[in-house]
Amino acid sequence: MAAPVRSDYAPWIALSRVKGLGRVTFKKLVAHFGDPAAAFSSTSSELSAIEGLDANVIEGLRGFAEWEEVEKEIRRAEQAGATLIPFSDANYPPRLRMIADPPPLLYVKGEVRADDDRAVAVVGSRSASEYGQRVARNLCRDLASLGFTVVSGMARGLDGAAHEAALSAGGRTLAVLGSGVDRPYPPEHEKLYHRIREKGAVISEFPMGTRPLAFNFPARNRLISGLSLGVVVVEATEKSGSLITAALALEQGREVFAVPGEVGASRSRGTHRLIRQGAKLVESVADIVEEIAPQLLNRASVSRPGAQRMLPQQARAAARKVFALLQERSAQIDEVIESSGLSPAEVSEILLDLELQGYVRQLPGKRYTAE
Amino acid sequence: MAAPVRSDYAPWIALSRVKGLGRVTFKKLVAHFGDPAAAFSSTSSELSAIEGLDANVIEGLRGFAEWEEVEKEIRRAEQAGATLIPFSDANYPPRLRMIADPPPLLYVKGEVRADDDRAVAVVGSRSASEYGQRVARNLCRDLASLGFTVVSGMARGLDGAAHEAALSAGGRTLAVLGSGVDRPYPPEHEKLYHRIREKGAVISEFPMGTRPLAFNFPARNRLISGLSLGVVVVEATEKSGSLITAALALEQGREVFAVPGEVGASRSRGTHRLIRQGAKLVESVADIVEEIAPQLLNRASVSRPGAQRMLPQQARAAARKVFALLQERSAQIDEVIESSGLSPAEVSEILLDLELQGYVRQLPGKRYTAE
Repeated sequence: MAAPVRSDYAPWIALSRVKGLGRVTFKKLVAHFGDPAAAFSSTSSELSAIEGLDANVIEGLRGFAEWEEVEKEIRRAEQAGATLIPFSDANYPPRLRMIADPPPLLYVKGEVRADDDRAVAVVGSRSASEYGQRVARNLCRDLASLGFTVVSGMARGLDGAAHEAALSAGGRTLAVLGSGVDRPYPPEHEKLYHRIREKGAVISEFPMGTRPLAFNFPARNRLISGLSLGVVVVEATEKSGSLITAALALEQGREVFAVPGEVGASRSRGTHRLIRQGAKLVESVADIVEEIAPQLLNRASVSRPGAQRMLPQQARAAARKVFALLQERSAQIDEVIESSGLSPAEVSEILLDLELQGYVRQLPGKRYTAE
Repeated sequence: MAAPVRSDYAPWIALSRVKGLGRVTFKKLVAHFGDPAAAFSSTSSELSAIEGLDANVIEGLRGFAEWEEVEKEIRRAEQAGATLIPFSDANYPPRLRMIADPPPLLYVKGEVRADDDRAVAVVGSRSASEYGQRVARNLCRDLASLGFTVVSGMARGLDGAAHEAALSAGGRTLAVLGSGVDRPYPPEHEKLYHRIREKGAVISEFPMGTRPLAFNFPARNRLISGLSLGVVVVEATEKSGSLITAALALEQGREVFAVPGEVGASRSRGTHRLIRQGAKLVESVADIVEEIAPQLLNRASVSRPGAQRMLPQQARAAARKVFALLQERSAQIDEVIESSGLSPAEVSEILLDLELQGYVRQLPGKRYTAE
C-alpha cells in the first residue's frame, strides 16, 4: 500500500514518528532507498531485505497512518517561518551529517550557510561567574572576528554570553535548542533568539512546539558538538551538562578545549577535570586555532570552490556587483549600500560571505577591500 | 706525585677546584677509583687510561696544589655547623644521585634523612599573588600531613610560603640555596632559614660564603627537582625560573605538576603553558599523590626495611623506647617526653621518623599510637 506523499518533507517527519525507528536505523533506510518516501511505499519483503531492520519497524512503516499530523506539522513550521532541512538536503550541515546519530530533519529559524561549517562551540555553566562570562565574551568576540561561527545552546549564563559576544563582533552564531525551534527558551532570551535568527540560525531537531524538557538537552548537546570543529567548555561544575557535550564531542572526533580557573572555584572543577583528561587548555583564541588549523587548511584546499558553487543562485548577481565595486576601490559598508542599491541586510550578508570565502578583507575603520 | 690527603672530604672539595672537571666527568673518576683521593695520587698514564678524560683535567689533577684552601674550606664548614655529604656517602640523597649531573659534594645545615626521598618540590613566582600563596600553603600543609618532605628554594614569595606551610603542619622541608649554605638568602628569610635547619635541612652545592649570583640559580633548580619525586609549579610568569625547574624535572624523569589560575593572570601564564605541554593540572594533593603513587608503592616494598636499617645507630635505642611506650598505650607528645626522659626535640623527631616509616600513627587531639 503506497503512502500518499504530500511534500518532500513529509516522509522525513513521518520517519521520526515510526515507533522503534531511531536515529541510526533511519540512516539505513536512507542509504537503501535514497528517498525515504520509498520506504513507506515498499513491500514487507523489500523492507525485510534490509539488514538490521526490526519487524516492528517494518510494521510501523507499512502501517503508517499519521500523514495528516505530518502535514499539520509542516504547515506549522511554515507558519512560524521555520525552514526544514532533511538529512539528504544539500544545505544539511556536512559536519553534522558525519556523526553517528544525526537528526533526520532539522528545523531552522534563520539560515545555516555553507561557511557555518567553520564553527566552534562555546558552552558552559548556566550560573556562570563574572570571570567565566568575561572569558567567553573575549573568546567569542575573537572567534567571530576570525570568521568563525559560534555555536552554543542559548541557555542562561554562559551560552547567552557566547551568542551575544559573537553578534556584537558582527559574527555569525548558531543556537541549538532543546525545545521546538518556535519556543525560545529561556523566556528572557527571546530578544537574543530574534537577533540570532537574523545573523545566524536557531536550530532544533524537535517537533514544533516541543517544550524544553530536561531529557531533550543531552540530545541537543550532541548537535552543538556535531555542528562544530571543537567545543570550548568555559566553566563547568562537576555535574555540568557541558561535560556531556565534551564527552559527545570526543565520541564525534571533535576537539575539546577547556578554560582553567582558580583552584577552589566550583565552576572550574569540571574544566580542570577535562584538562586532566586531555582537553586542551585554552587561554586565547590562538590556542583554539592552533588545534583546529589542520582541519581548516584541509577544508580550504578542498572545499573553497565548492563553497562558491553553493552560493544561492539568486544571491550571486548581487554578490558579483558588490565584489566588482570593491575591486574598483575599498569602501565602507554605507558606500557599498549606496552604490549597489542593495539593502543594508543584503550587503552585510554578502560582505560576510565574501569575507568568509576570502574574496574580501576588512580594513581598519570598517572599510572593505577586494583581495 | 701523591697528594697529601688530610680528610675524607678534602678530595671531594679538591675535585670541584680542578679546572675542566665538570659534574659529569667527576662521576667517571668516582666510577674508576671509588675514592677520588686515588685520582690525585695516580700517574699520568693511569689517568690517561680513563676514557674521555681531557689532557687538561689530567694536568689539573696531577698538579693540584690548593690543599690548604681545601682544608680551610672544611674548617669553615665545620665552624658554621655544616655537614658535608660527598657523592659516595651513604647519606647522599639516593634520588639526587640518579640525575645526570649530581653535585660531587653537598653542604648541609640540618639533617637530610632517609625518608626525605619521599619529597615533593613546590616552587613558584617570587612575586606570588595572594591566590598563589594560598594554594601553595594548602598543598604544602597537606603534603606535610601525608608525611611528604616539601622541597623548595627559600626564595621570596611562593618558595617561602611553601616552607612555612610545611613547617606549620609539623612536616619536614628542604631548602636548596643558590648561595653558600652559610649565607641565608634573601636576608628577610633568615628566621625561616633557622626554622628549616631545625626541622629539615638547608642544602647547597656551592662553597661556603658563595654569594647568591644569578647564574647559580638554574644549577640550584636542578637540585630542587633532583631531590624530589615531582615538582609542583604553583605560579610562574612566562619567563620564570620555575619553568627551568620544570624542564629540568622532565629531563630527570620527574613528574611535573602545575596549578591553573585565571586566564589573563600573568603569573598563571607559565603554569598554563606547562599544562598545555603535558604537566599534570593540580587542584589538590590528591592529584599529586595519584601520579607519584606508583613510585611510592615501589619504594615501600623495596626500601622500607632499608630505611629502618639506616636510622642512626645512636637514635635507635631512644626510638625503641618511644615505640615501646606507645605500644603500651597511646599518648600525647608531652606524656611521651615525661615517660621517656628524652628532650622534646628528640621526641618530636623520633615520632616523626616513626610516623613516616609507618610505625606510629597520629590520632585526633595530637595523640600518637603504635601501629
